[in-house]
Amino acid sequence: MLGIGDDCAVIDVSSDKLCLITTDMLVDGTHFDLKKCTIREVGRKSIACSISDVAAMGCQPTVAVISICFPVHTTEKFARELYEGIWGIADKYDVEIVGGDIVSGRSPFCINVTMLGRDDGLKPIRRSGAKAGDMILVTGDLGGSILDKHLHFEPRLKEGLALNKNFTIHAMIDISDGLTADLNHILEESGVSAILYEDKIPISPAAVELSKKSGHTPLHHALSDGEDYELLMTVSKVQAKKVQSSDLLKSVKVSCIGEIIKGAGIQMKPPGGNIHRIKPRGYEHLKS
Amino acid sequence: MLGIGDDCAVIDVSSDKLCLITTDMLVDGTHFDLKKCTIREVGRKSIACSISDVAAMGCQPTVAVISICFPVHTTEKFARELYEGIWGIADKYDVEIVGGDIVSGRSPFCINVTMLGRDDGLKPIRRSGAKAGDMILVTGDLGGSILDKHLHFEPRLKEGLALNKNFTIHAMIDISDGLTADLNHILEESGVSAILYEDKIPISPAAVELSKKSGHTPLHHALSDGEDYELLMTVSKVQAKKVQSSDLLKSVKVSCIGEIIKGAGIQMKPPGGNIHRIKPRGYEHLKS
Repeated sequence: MLGIGDDCAVIDVSSDKLCLITTDMLVDGTHFDLKKCTIREVGRKSIACSISDVAAMGCQPTVAVISICFPVHTTEKFARELYEGIWGIADKYDVEIVGGDIVSGRSPFCINVTMLGRDDGLKPIRRSGAKAGDMILVTGDLGGSILDKHLHFEPRLKEGLALNKNFTIHAMIDISDGLTADLNHILEESGVSAILYEDKIPISPAAVELSKKSGHTPLHHALSDGEDYELLMTVSKVQAKKVQSSDLLKSVKVSCIGEIIKGAGIQMKPPGGNIHRIKPRGYEHLKS
Repeated sequence: MLGIGDDCAVIDVSSDKLCLITTDMLVDGTHFDLKKCTIREVGRKSIACSISDVAAMGCQPTVAVISICFPVHTTEKFARELYEGIWGIADKYDVEIVGGDIVSGRSPFCINVTMLGRDDGLKPIRRSGAKAGDMILVTGDLGGSILDKHLHFEPRLKEGLALNKNFTIHAMIDISDGLTADLNHILEESGVSAILYEDKIPISPAAVELSKKSGHTPLHHALSDGEDYELLMTVSKVQAKKVQSSDLLKSVKVSCIGEIIKGAGIQMKPPGGNIHRIKPRGYEHLKS
């Protein structure tokens, strides 16, 4: 089936410093809605999410395998358009699709991408390295991704690689669940706490637009919405200045949105107001 | 979520000859029926299928990542029993679960396992190496797997490794789609044809039992039923004798069920009857 239906693929990794594996499952009705987007966009997104995962560790994606569950009565045209979406972005980011599994079921469309990455001699950046005294940086604008960006974002691969190569990044993650939810992953794995500067959160135009319909503030969307796939990192104060003034990242805005302190949890510092504790909010699966 | 919900896992492959990647998606209603089996059995099966894929290339599985889509309202007990099934067999076969993705959806339960394998200095056995003059060997008995074996089979890992290490195997595959369907994969990828000896096909007791209800012959089930996860291989005549008489494979029956010839397709040779062409039959996805 268009070359991605083999059981097992032989990969040659002898010349690579292969070091990373990531897997992402996307299901119709949860991660996208085929009534509101094309299957080509879904194919693109499935690969882009995995590239973003690898980028967030400052590494280069290499090969991927893809599993797809097609609902019964899927047409060949549908499958072809899916693959066009997959291959377009895989080619662009130099990711080789080496195998996969095609099944059909009485279920919504579902796709799983597993991607391998190599570090080219650099260490992968983990979530667990944040230190008290670090500044918190984030690329791009946040919130309202559901209006468009969640389907069309460019994974911050160039930026992730440049950050790992040229700076000392203590901890990094891509924002898939939401700013506070993903920041919380860093905090929990690093055993530290954070203060966010309310007036420094980069609110996207989409967050403003969405707030008109949602009843939430633009800030709420920037803090809680998932799938912006921007890079969130912590670095020392010295490195933060270097990152923000560097020409290497001039293609994207980098905002300093807070600092890491000892303790646990997240606090919000409004301009002129009192610091108060906030709950990490975002998309969570299997809430208990 | 029980340690398999991370986005990206760091793997250390510097000391391994990593060479294989396989991915398998299993969906409730297609690959199992949660009304007729336990979720623990499904967890076990999901890992066993991938181990079987790697075993069929004569390699050792090393690490795996698992993606799971839980239907909404999944209980923690359900998830725990799933993981028990996964971890039981992963431990047994020394496969490390290094990461995964947990999502929920308005969809049937779905699980995807991606597994890496290493070759320990041996070359992976492909499907494309069958040669005219080869004999066709198969392990175990075939047919009627749906009655029980599809949930409880032991992947032929020990056998796959022993075959790769001690013999010259030209082509190998595990029988997941069905004997003739999987044989056909070897034939197409090798550009050859096969004659099957009708009276040498190892028919399982389950195939006999199933035939009483199905209206098909036991032979039909042995030829067409999927999910026996036995090893199907082609070897030279000299190697075939060595494999069949070897103590290394004494734990499993090895039957010589046919031969490879020039041409395309599969022919059946009944005892005393006329050779006739048969169609590869088995489980196929996205039939057109």
